[in-house]
Amino acid sequence: MKNCIVAQSGGPTAAINASLAGVIQGALDNPAFDKVYGALNGITGILDERLLTLNDTFEDRGNIDLLKVTPAMYLGSCRYKLPKLEDDKAPYEKIFQVFEKMGVGAFFYIGGNDSMDTVDKLSAYAASIGSEVRIIGVPKTIDNDLCITDHTPGFGSAAKYVASSILEIFHDTVIYALKSVTIIEVMGRDAGWLTAASVLARNEYCDAPHLIYLPEAAFDTEKFLSDVKDLLDKQNNVIVAVSEGIRDKDGNYISASTGKVDNFGHSQLSGAGKTLEYLVQDRLNVKVRSIELSTLQRCASHIASKTDLEESFQEGLYGVSLAAAGKTGLMVTILRTDSKDYQVTYDASPVCDIANGVKAVPEGFITKEGNDVTHEMVSYLMPLIQGEPEITFENGTPKYLPVKHLV
Amino acid sequence: MKNCIVAQSGGPTAAINASLAGVIQGALDNPAFDKVYGALNGITGILDERLLTLNDTFEDRGNIDLLKVTPAMYLGSCRYKLPKLEDDKAPYEKIFQVFEKMGVGAFFYIGGNDSMDTVDKLSAYAASIGSEVRIIGVPKTIDNDLCITDHTPGFGSAAKYVASSILEIFHDTVIYALKSVTIIEVMGRDAGWLTAASVLARNEYCDAPHLIYLPEAAFDTEKFLSDVKDLLDKQNNVIVAVSEGIRDKDGNYISASTGKVDNFGHSQLSGAGKTLEYLVQDRLNVKVRSIELSTLQRCASHIASKTDLEESFQEGLYGVSLAAAGKTGLMVTILRTDSKDYQVTYDASPVCDIANGVKAVPEGFITKEGNDVTHEMVSYLMPLIQGEPEITFENGTPKYLPVKHLV
Repeated sequence: MKNCIVAQSGGPTAAINASLAGVIQGALDNPAFDKVYGALNGITGILDERLLTLNDTFEDRGNIDLLKVTPAMYLGSCRYKLPKLEDDKAPYEKIFQVFEKMGVGAFFYIGGNDSMDTVDKLSAYAASIGSEVRIIGVPKTIDNDLCITDHTPGFGSAAKYVASSILEIFHDTVIYALKSVTIIEVMGRDAGWLTAASVLARNEYCDAPHLIYLPEAAFDTEKFLSDVKDLLDKQNNVIVAVSEGIRDKDGNYISASTGKVDNFGHSQLSGAGKTLEYLVQDRLNVKVRSIELSTLQRCASHIASKTDLEESFQEGLYGVSLAAAGKTGLMVTILRTDSKDYQVTYDASPVCDIANGVKAVPEGFITKEGNDVTHEMVSYLMPLIQGEPEITFENGTPKYLPVKHLV
Repeated sequence: MKNCIVAQSGGPTAAINASLAGVIQGALDNPAFDKVYGALNGITGILDERLLTLNDTFEDRGNIDLLKVTPAMYLGSCRYKLPKLEDDKAPYEKIFQVFEKMGVGAFFYIGGNDSMDTVDKLSAYAASIGSEVRIIGVPKTIDNDLCITDHTPGFGSAAKYVASSILEIFHDTVIYALKSVTIIEVMGRDAGWLTAASVLARNEYCDAPHLIYLPEAAFDTEKFLSDVKDLLDKQNNVIVAVSEGIRDKDGNYISASTGKVDNFGHSQLSGAGKTLEYLVQDRLNVKVRSIELSTLQRCASHIASKTDLEESFQEGLYGVSLAAAGKTGLMVTILRTDSKDYQVTYDASPVCDIANGVKAVPEGFITKEGNDVTHEMVSYLMPLIQGEPEITFENGTPKYLPVKHLV
C-alpha cells in the first residue's frame, strides 16, 4: 500500500475543489492508497516539502461535501513552470526524492493547460528513470479550452455565473427609457467559450446580449460600431458581451496592453470593455458603461452549476481509479455520449496529446457576421449550467470549508 | 372607491420590486382601492400617460411572489427631477389632471432621496390646491443614506452581496504564496454604509477585508500606503474595501473625475479603486489588482437578503394602509425596536423631514484610525443580511418576472 499526493495549480474555479474532493474520497476509499497528502501551492509544495495529511480532516465526509462547494483552491495554487529537463534536472530529482521519502505511489495534479504540461514532463521523467509513481492530470479551467475533453471542470459554473449575471444586468438596464449601451467584458484570452455562455441569459423576454464577440472571430471596430448603431435605431438598450481577448484581423488585441507578461509569457491584458466603452462614447455619443465581470466569474461558488460540481467530483474519483489500475501520464476527460439527453462518461487521454494545445470555438458555433453564436453553441452549452448545489449560509454569508492553513 | 397609481424611480436595487409587490398586494386587498395602475418609468409615466393596469397580472399571487425576488424596477425608472413649483407649474397641473382623469385617490412612489423630493413637492402641491389625492413615499436605496428610517430597503441585499463576494474573493486571493494587494471598490458616493458591510465577510478563518475606507473619514494616501505596507510585512495578501466616494481632508475625491454631472448635479465619478491600484503599484511595487463590484451589487437578486425582501414588502403594504387611512406626504420608515433580538416595526415620517438629507455613518461606527469599522457597526449590520429567498431556476438561470413591457 502506497501513499499519494494531490495538488492544485493555475487560476481558481468554483469546481477545482470538487475535483479535489473526488480525489480525496477516491483515495481514502481505495485500498491501493494509505495516506493522502495535499501539497500546498501546487508543485512548489512538493519542492519545498509543504505537505498536509488530509486523511483526518476528510474522514469526516461532511468536510468532503463542504469542500465540493468551496471556491478556489483549498490547497493553494502556484504559477510555477517546470523547466525543461535538459535545462535543469534539479527540480525533477527533488520531486522524485520527495515521492520516495513519503512513500508516494501516485501524484494527482488538478489544473489547466500549464499544469497538464507539468504532468506530461513528470510522467516522461518517471518513465526515463523507471519510477513506478503514477502521474495523473485532472483538468480544470473556466476557459474550457483543453483539447479532447468535451468540456472542462469549472467552465459550467463560470458559464452559469456569466449567464445569470447578464440576465440580472438586463433587468438593471431596461428600466430607463433612454438610449444606452452596456458592454460586459468576460474572461477569455484565447478562447471565447465563456463569453459565448452569455447567450444563455436569453429567455422568453430577455434578448440580451444583443451582440457577442469572441476572440475566434476577427474584431472590426467599424463593423462593431455599425452593429451597435443599427440596434440603437430599433431599441433603447444594447447589451454587448465581449471576450477580454478580442483582436483585429491582424491579431492585435482590442485593448490597452499593460506591456507586462506573466511567468508563462502570456501578455497581460486589460480593458477590451473599457476600450469599446470609450469608442462608443466618442463615435456614437450615447450613454455607455462597461462592466468587467472580473474575479467573481471564477469564484462565485454560491451560484455554481451542480452539473459542473458533480462532474468535477467524478473526474477526481476517476483519476484515482486510473492510478490504482497502474495507468500514468493521462488526463481525465469527459465524453458526451448522448447530446440529446445529455449523458457523459469519463475517459482518459495521454497528457502529451492535450498539454499546450488550445481548443478554440469552431466556426460553426459563431454566426457568419461574427457578432453572435449559433444554435449549435446553445445546444452544447445549455446542459453544462444546469442545477444548483445546496449552499448553507452562516451569519448571512455562504458557509465554505475554512482555509486557515493558507493564510 | 378610488384607483391608485404606483411608480418606481432612481437606481435599481434587489428589493425595490418587493416593495412594489407589497403596494400591489396591499392595494388589491384593500377595499379603499379598485384599479391599481403602474406608471412606466416613474413620474414620467404619469406625465406621458403610460400606465399599466396591474390587477389582472397580480390577481395571480404567484406573480406577486415572483415579483418579490425580481431585480431592478418592474415598472421601469426615471431620473426626472420635478422643477420647483414657482419655476414651472405645468408638470404639477398635468400630473393632477391625470390623477383626476384616472380616478386616482393615492399615488405611491418607491424610490430614493430624489424620489422623496418628488413626494414632498407633490404632497405640498396637493395641499395647495385642496386635492384629496394621498401621496406616499416608500423608500429604497442600496446607499442606506435616508434619514429617520433605521435602514433602507435594498441595502440589506446589496450588503449581503458585498460581504459574500468579498468572502469568495478572499478564497480566490489566498491561494498564492506571494505578496499581493486586492482593492475592492464598493458603491457609495456620500455614505459608506455599503462599503462598511464588507466587514461581514469576516468569519472564523477569513480576516478580510483587512482595511476598510469610507467617505465619512478623510482619506490620507500616505496613511493608506503605510497601512498596506505594515500589513504586507506580516502577511501575504492584503484585501482592501473602499467606497467609490472616498475623499481627502479637503473633500476632493480620490479618483479620476470624468468631469461630467448627472441630471441632479451629482458629479460622475469613476475609479477610486483604480486610482489606489496605480498608487500601490507605483509606490509599493507589489502585485496589485482592483475589482469594481459594479452594477451587480445592486441587482444580484439571486443572493438577496430575505430579511430585506420581507421588510421591503411590508413597507409597501404599510404605505397602502397609510393612504387608505387618509395620510399623505409621508415616507414609510423602519424602526428597530429591539436591537438584541432584532425586531422592527413600521412607521412613517413627513417626507419634508427626510428628502434631500443624507444619513452619514456616525463617528462611533468607524475606528479612530479611519481604516476599519467598529463592533457597533457589525451589530447594526448583521441582522440586515440574514436569510435567503427561494429562487427558482429555469434553464440554469434565475426565474424572474418577465419585463417585456419595458423593452
